[in-house]
Amino acid sequence: MNGSAPSRRKRGRPRKDQTLPGTPRSELLRVGVATLTEKGFSAVGIEEILSAASVPKGSFYHYFKSKDDFGLSLIDAYANYFARKLDHWFNNQDRSPLQRIEDFIVDARNGMARYNFRRGCLVGNLGQEMGVLPEPFRARIASVFSDWQARTAKCLHAARAAGQISADADCEWLAAFFWIGWEGAVLRAKLERNAEALDAFAEGFFRLIGARPNIRQVRQCSRQS
Amino acid sequence: MNGSAPSRRKRGRPRKDQTLPGTPRSELLRVGVATLTEKGFSAVGIEEILSAASVPKGSFYHYFKSKDDFGLSLIDAYANYFARKLDHWFNNQDRSPLQRIEDFIVDARNGMARYNFRRGCLVGNLGQEMGVLPEPFRARIASVFSDWQARTAKCLHAARAAGQISADADCEWLAAFFWIGWEGAVLRAKLERNAEALDAFAEGFFRLIGARPNIRQVRQCSRQS
Repeated sequence: MNGSAPSRRKRGRPRKDQTLPGTPRSELLRVGVATLTEKGFSAVGIEEILSAASVPKGSFYHYFKSKDDFGLSLIDAYANYFARKLDHWFNNQDRSPLQRIEDFIVDARNGMARYNFRRGCLVGNLGQEMGVLPEPFRARIASVFSDWQARTAKCLHAARAAGQISADADCEWLAAFFWIGWEGAVLRAKLERNAEALDAFAEGFFRLIGARPNIRQVRQCSRQS
Repeated sequence: MNGSAPSRRKRGRPRKDQTLPGTPRSELLRVGVATLTEKGFSAVGIEEILSAASVPKGSFYHYFKSKDDFGLSLIDAYANYFARKLDHWFNNQDRSPLQRIEDFIVDARNGMARYNFRRGCLVGNLGQEMGVLPEPFRARIASVFSDWQARTAKCLHAARAAGQISADADCEWLAAFFWIGWEGAVLRAKLERNAEALDAFAEGFFRLIGARPNIRQVRQCSRQS
């Protein structure tokens, strides 16, 4: 947001593109995103982020106007990262449209497993915290969900065009349904430290659209009751 | 948990059943539950709860061993309140089993609307915060979801016996799917400050079980994309 090089070099400040990996601003964003997929915004102090990013305490306000400005930049950074991830899977022309959605789900599942289900979704976490976050966060988070839904709807439209789902399927509505439930599944997976909720939601979603998923370990959710 | 009257009256402490409404311990729990449906556990200080409950600062540790003990008691209090709510709707013999599930959904929707979608689900909020909560919270929260799922599965079994859903419907799996997605819907409703996500998830759930819901304002979710 304010990562462009200043027009006149200030004393002691290196003129460096702060979007490059390893520069202080991008390190703060990288560490911030990782931290906020695990913990809440209100529970995390700037000191913890600075220390983990190995950025000197005094320089935070050189890169961000405030903790809130940092939070909004984290949403942007995560949204960009995630949009690229969705494009990677949803635009894969080697796979059928529904396989692409499956591939995304399997990748997200593997991503959570890699961090032992401690890390979830930054945008979902912040959404849950909205009660104590500054109001500008609300519109920003909501617009990220809209963006993900639009990308998912596009893939579902391709599935419809390919005859993989019913010709009268409402792709926008299905994409909205997917993201409403998927965030709930990520929350439960973090709570239970396993993939059962992800698998159960994925199976339900594919049943709803009238397709059979091929995701590992489906149908294992909560048979204890 | 430690709400029973002490065997010998201590100086300055009224011997009073602390489960009665208006007594300090029950007031702390009442205010704590209301606060934690809106904000996270880590974002809320004990002082805020004490002040809102009009309980003197010094007496908190008379009723609770620690903030964590208070948190676990809040989960129990909310679980009891919610179990009674589910029983109220799911055991209503004047309504068909699927109507009972609809009634619960409409009531939950009205409950959120009453507080302008600022309050969500205490157990869902705490689940999202697990990254920074003490480990004993995890099993307690997970067992609350199991309890809700078991009550919901029982109602779905009644629907199956009444022929309202398919004879081969897996009621335990459907109940698990419901709670996974419903918590996601509550999160989105809080974020967007409206009922669209609740209506969309409810509609998808009823479609999945092959029934048509009669909930107001269904099918309004995210058609913008």
